[in-house]
Amino acid sequence: MPFFRSSAARRCRRAGISSEKISKSSSGMIKPGQVGNAACLASNRQLVYQHAGFSGSRGIKAVNEETKSVLRPTTGEIVEQVRAMILTARHATLGVIEKDTGHPAVSRVAMAALEDGTPVLLTSALAAHTSALGADARCSLLIGEVGKGDPMAHARMSVFCHAQRMPQEERAAMRALFLAHHPKAINYIDLPDFGYWKLQVDRVSFNAGFGKAYAISGAELIPG
Amino acid sequence: MPFFRSSAARRCRRAGISSEKISKSSSGMIKPGQVGNAACLASNRQLVYQHAGFSGSRGIKAVNEETKSVLRPTTGEIVEQVRAMILTARHATLGVIEKDTGHPAVSRVAMAALEDGTPVLLTSALAAHTSALGADARCSLLIGEVGKGDPMAHARMSVFCHAQRMPQEERAAMRALFLAHHPKAINYIDLPDFGYWKLQVDRVSFNAGFGKAYAISGAELIPG
Repeated sequence: MPFFRSSAARRCRRAGISSEKISKSSSGMIKPGQVGNAACLASNRQLVYQHAGFSGSRGIKAVNEETKSVLRPTTGEIVEQVRAMILTARHATLGVIEKDTGHPAVSRVAMAALEDGTPVLLTSALAAHTSALGADARCSLLIGEVGKGDPMAHARMSVFCHAQRMPQEERAAMRALFLAHHPKAINYIDLPDFGYWKLQVDRVSFNAGFGKAYAISGAELIPG
Repeated sequence: MPFFRSSAARRCRRAGISSEKISKSSSGMIKPGQVGNAACLASNRQLVYQHAGFSGSRGIKAVNEETKSVLRPTTGEIVEQVRAMILTARHATLGVIEKDTGHPAVSRVAMAALEDGTPVLLTSALAAHTSALGADARCSLLIGEVGKGDPMAHARMSVFCHAQRMPQEERAAMRALFLAHHPKAINYIDLPDFGYWKLQVDRVSFNAGFGKAYAISGAELIPG
């Protein structure tokens, strides 16, 4: 498939990844939760297949080892890009462990963030995700808009967090923060069953588009 | 706050919910995983507060009981709307239990669906969500685009599923289905580490906008 190969090579060149880099670099490591960009991995794989002389299951193992290098080193600029995306996000998909069933559950949530990039949620005690967070603080947010064209080509991140109920004394500040981000929340923000959650960031898997995958620690995003 | 009350009442009238209905109806039931629409719940709550003479924690309990009626009865039209949204969705947020850590994890996935509305995913063995599904088949999809204005006003659904690897003999049919939905997948669809998942639907929590929440069983969506 000569077209396929040249298309894959072109995509890698555009992404600034040479076939030499792919087969030689070993500094990157895919952390737990890191979801590589399928299409770019595919490009890299195609090249690695050529390098490794792909043949059968032994070939696949070699590819799995090699393509870990698709993860790029985190720079200050990337951390800033991630923080900016969190600070401007108005909604996200929240992933939690459903109370009672243990099933992974996803829901759309309105979000805001503290200045340092810590996500903040406002949830109702009537919503299933609130009971879930109360029973198991572990959660994840998918942040990033989908634009035109290939939905997998647009930047997004999975933010792995632990949720903490915001202390009562923070309520006024959180109210102001949330209303600045969501003026329409005035319709329900003061109801007694609504409460704020601070999502302590453990790690971020950031996929900035084809061939641009990064693993960022909570300490890299929010130092101190 | 007379403005607040009248605004809440207006919103409920628009949604076809009278304050009488809210306090008297008891046919609806919020199933596990059902996430009510916060703003509409807020409207209902406000009215119920008036009915129940809200005062302190006893009042909150009464409200929690009463507002369950916000869940509307499922009609054939609603089931068709849900199926149509699944059939036309090109991407979703997948929620899984991360292998090794047990943390809930979310990622963007490209999706297609069988004619009956059963979601189909194409994932790479290199992606963390694939290992997760291999270890624990339980998963959820958030489906629904976010448009202009309030992100919480747009229709979306949480689809609770069990993932099954698609049998080898279905591969050719799945390839055709996926390419019809995602022409650009031609760049990686034939790589040996890519595989198809059929997501058996257990239940759907559908939120069609303010005041329009539904719980739909897998059997209602996909009979037989």
